[in-house]
Amino acid sequence: MKLATAVINGKPTIGVIIGETFFDLHAATNGSLPKTMLEAIRLGDDFIKKVTELQETMDGKGIPLSEIKLLAPIPRPAKNIFCVGKNYVDHAIEMGSKDDIPTAPMVFSKTPTTVIGPNERIPLHKEVTEQLDYEGELAVIIGKRGKAIKREEAMDYVFGYTIINDVTARDLQKRHKQFLIGKSLDGSCPMGPVIVHKSQITDPHDLKIVTKINGEVRQNASTSQFIFDIPELISVLSKGMTLEPGDIIATGTPSGVGAGFNPPKVLSAGDVVEITIEGIGTLANRVDTE
Amino acid sequence: MKLATAVINGKPTIGVIIGETFFDLHAATNGSLPKTMLEAIRLGDDFIKKVTELQETMDGKGIPLSEIKLLAPIPRPAKNIFCVGKNYVDHAIEMGSKDDIPTAPMVFSKTPTTVIGPNERIPLHKEVTEQLDYEGELAVIIGKRGKAIKREEAMDYVFGYTIINDVTARDLQKRHKQFLIGKSLDGSCPMGPVIVHKSQITDPHDLKIVTKINGEVRQNASTSQFIFDIPELISVLSKGMTLEPGDIIATGTPSGVGAGFNPPKVLSAGDVVEITIEGIGTLANRVDTE
Repeated sequence: MKLATAVINGKPTIGVIIGETFFDLHAATNGSLPKTMLEAIRLGDDFIKKVTELQETMDGKGIPLSEIKLLAPIPRPAKNIFCVGKNYVDHAIEMGSKDDIPTAPMVFSKTPTTVIGPNERIPLHKEVTEQLDYEGELAVIIGKRGKAIKREEAMDYVFGYTIINDVTARDLQKRHKQFLIGKSLDGSCPMGPVIVHKSQITDPHDLKIVTKINGEVRQNASTSQFIFDIPELISVLSKGMTLEPGDIIATGTPSGVGAGFNPPKVLSAGDVVEITIEGIGTLANRVDTE
Repeated sequence: MKLATAVINGKPTIGVIIGETFFDLHAATNGSLPKTMLEAIRLGDDFIKKVTELQETMDGKGIPLSEIKLLAPIPRPAKNIFCVGKNYVDHAIEMGSKDDIPTAPMVFSKTPTTVIGPNERIPLHKEVTEQLDYEGELAVIIGKRGKAIKREEAMDYVFGYTIINDVTARDLQKRHKQFLIGKSLDGSCPMGPVIVHKSQITDPHDLKIVTKINGEVRQNASTSQFIFDIPELISVLSKGMTLEPGDIIATGTPSGVGAGFNPPKVLSAGDVVEITIEGIGTLANRVDTE
């Protein structure tokens, strides 16, 4: 089940994508399903059950994907996006040395104002940074409120998965020590194109993840290379903090970011970043001139 | 003008406090003013103008403060709370050495789930941390949407001020490198008791700030000691990131935190933390047994 948020009659509206067609869930149920992804996720299993039933009876009332504008699946998260730093060994090393391989998850955040949708422009922010970089990441969407969640039960708290580009201003990241500022420029969190419900992903720890810049492969890895797997991240985060439906956890990026090359390969105006994760799709965004 | 959120008829409702009386703004205006602080702040200058007019005509319809339960002024922020690390020289030194005095603002965040009100209990989280600590801080509430805000115009973007206790699990803060996890335990952001509108604070950079534990003075400083003042913080944060009405910036804590003592003085069950900031009031919370 692929869920997305699109602009319908000028308003963000959620739908299910079947083949190349978007079905407006609010309209299809005469308003009994909500318009926003956050509200839908908060409905819990009921939501998935209803969509599953609907899918079997969906008729021709959908809109071809080619005719609609998709937004980020969650255009405005209710809190900052949780981001895991250095969760792939090779990336930790490319950013420093073996001493940078973490022994406990490093978690920072991106503000909700960073979120943009598929095909939206990533601002270059040339007045603010000279070192804009990409980071392709699998993001986990939390489906259920929970605290002190055990490793063994953690996957029950997952709603689904999407793709995030954790766009980073390397100079700001370094200058301000704590990562928030360098990670929170407007438009620095492209997300989407869809949320895939967890029932469609056999093993989230065995997904190919590839990032291309203007067609050139830069990151090519597998989520099997996580240092801290999804149950570990959920368990560590929720030890003393309540996780809520709609929370987003970006699981970290593999090696091959621009800063890992010598000399570094920074993003430039016009560059196209494409992140593909097996079973989810491709998140593509062009870097704007400003 | 002191604004607060209280529980009225079982629901969070904003009001203005005059003397020892709380006036419900939604009720006093037959519903023309909103019930939540975030909605009120988003109304901009109109909100303050209306409350100013109302204050002159308020009659006996208020409720004595002694009869109501105050919540945090913003019980559920719309994004994580921005927190500035090491913004007082003496505190930077007590946490390490002179090398720890920052040359650019260090900004991390606390999740919205951390917020509790005045007199609510701070959970001890004894299963998760052995080093719970307090940090008394002046917090700035943003009143107006803005980006690339100049230093000279920054104070126009301030709505008002409140007090925050940036409760911190020192062991988690250290273990996870980036501060979010150690700063985001449930209940680790007592806030309040009120928001004081900026018109009532002559100089936010000349306020006494005192933190007491069980009556013993631990922090005793002035906001004149900020390394980065409020215009600088707003200007740096907004360089590439849009600030929004209702955003909260905790400006950092002075020296005298528990971790600064030798041996460290950690919080224990039953401890009462009182933070007093001149012109705002006192934020008091007891540490719970769990």
